[in-house]
Amino acid sequence: MSANLHPLVQHIRKITADQEIGEEAVLPFFDTRLFKKKDILQQEEKLCVHYFFVVKGCLRLYFTDDSGTEQTLQFALENWWMTDLDAFRTGRQSVYSIQALEPAEVLVIDAENYNLLLQKLPVMEKYFRLVYERAYAASLLRVQMISRMPKNEFYELFEGKYPDFLQRIPQKILASFLGFTPEYLSELRKKRVEKKLS
Amino acid sequence: MSANLHPLVQHIRKITADQEIGEEAVLPFFDTRLFKKKDILQQEEKLCVHYFFVVKGCLRLYFTDDSGTEQTLQFALENWWMTDLDAFRTGRQSVYSIQALEPAEVLVIDAENYNLLLQKLPVMEKYFRLVYERAYAASLLRVQMISRMPKNEFYELFEGKYPDFLQRIPQKILASFLGFTPEYLSELRKKRVEKKLS
Repeated sequence: MSANLHPLVQHIRKITADQEIGEEAVLPFFDTRLFKKKDILQQEEKLCVHYFFVVKGCLRLYFTDDSGTEQTLQFALENWWMTDLDAFRTGRQSVYSIQALEPAEVLVIDAENYNLLLQKLPVMEKYFRLVYERAYAASLLRVQMISRMPKNEFYELFEGKYPDFLQRIPQKILASFLGFTPEYLSELRKKRVEKKLS
Repeated sequence: MSANLHPLVQHIRKITADQEIGEEAVLPFFDTRLFKKKDILQQEEKLCVHYFFVVKGCLRLYFTDDSGTEQTLQFALENWWMTDLDAFRTGRQSVYSIQALEPAEVLVIDAENYNLLLQKLPVMEKYFRLVYERAYAASLLRVQMISRMPKNEFYELFEGKYPDFLQRIPQKILASFLGFTPEYLSELRKKRVEKKLS
């Protein structure tokens, strides 16, 4: 029965260990939206009014640097949340754009409904506390990886932690995320494959 | 009257806007500890059993890299929380060390009491949800700064956002945090001072 539940409600039950929470309490706060590959969900310098939960597909968050290059900072697969959290919290313009890398189904909530949801359903405080606790813990490791680790070690760690990403994300965007040139990434992948085969 | 409240309780009231919460409900879950400058609060590769709230002073979180150099990843001033959050959550060994950079007064809580506190006082779910929400939002900006920003811009942004840090943190440690050599940092500071005076 729980397999038929909406993925967000399954995720809330899994994270909070609260088996009582039902779709009728949660889903009315959200809209479902479908996006095509390459659709833009949030544009840089536009007001950030939406928070996205990925039901199916893959999103990326990026900004355009002074030279006009798109720099990817984050990916979101199924059961991940994505927005410019600082802008969403404070009702400001987004510093980042968000784009679908695959055809995507997402839940969308605005700030008013996000706050209402937290007021009406105390278990959501626990849910988001745990979601952010994990995300924040992971971000510390990320800072360590980016700033202090040799590039090939960083790649190996990333490959071990997020194998799905390597399959689903286009080379050029993955290279930008890792801070590599596309040529360096392709060389690294070739070496890794040769190592596995030998 | 609220000025006499313990800083943690003041912080909870400020963040959650709940003016009912009192010291007697919160403080029994914590111990108060005093540390001298340079004292180690948490050692790398030891079990991570403590979460620290800074009442007074300044802590840093760091690890020792393969070449034996201490690499600083985070600072905590008054009203900040610090631990190896991933290790604390999961009861594992800490990847990081934590050291007092100034004489410090901290509150200490262990994982059992942290979970009890969240169970007994639902407002603490909201408090930590908001603490992590902010920390996580800031960490995204941090990733952007470290990985994609010219070093002098990164320094200016850091200076604008955390002016206290520049006064209180030893040059050598600040340089390590910023990913600079101490010489580069000292040159940059000289230039910034000259610019302000001119």
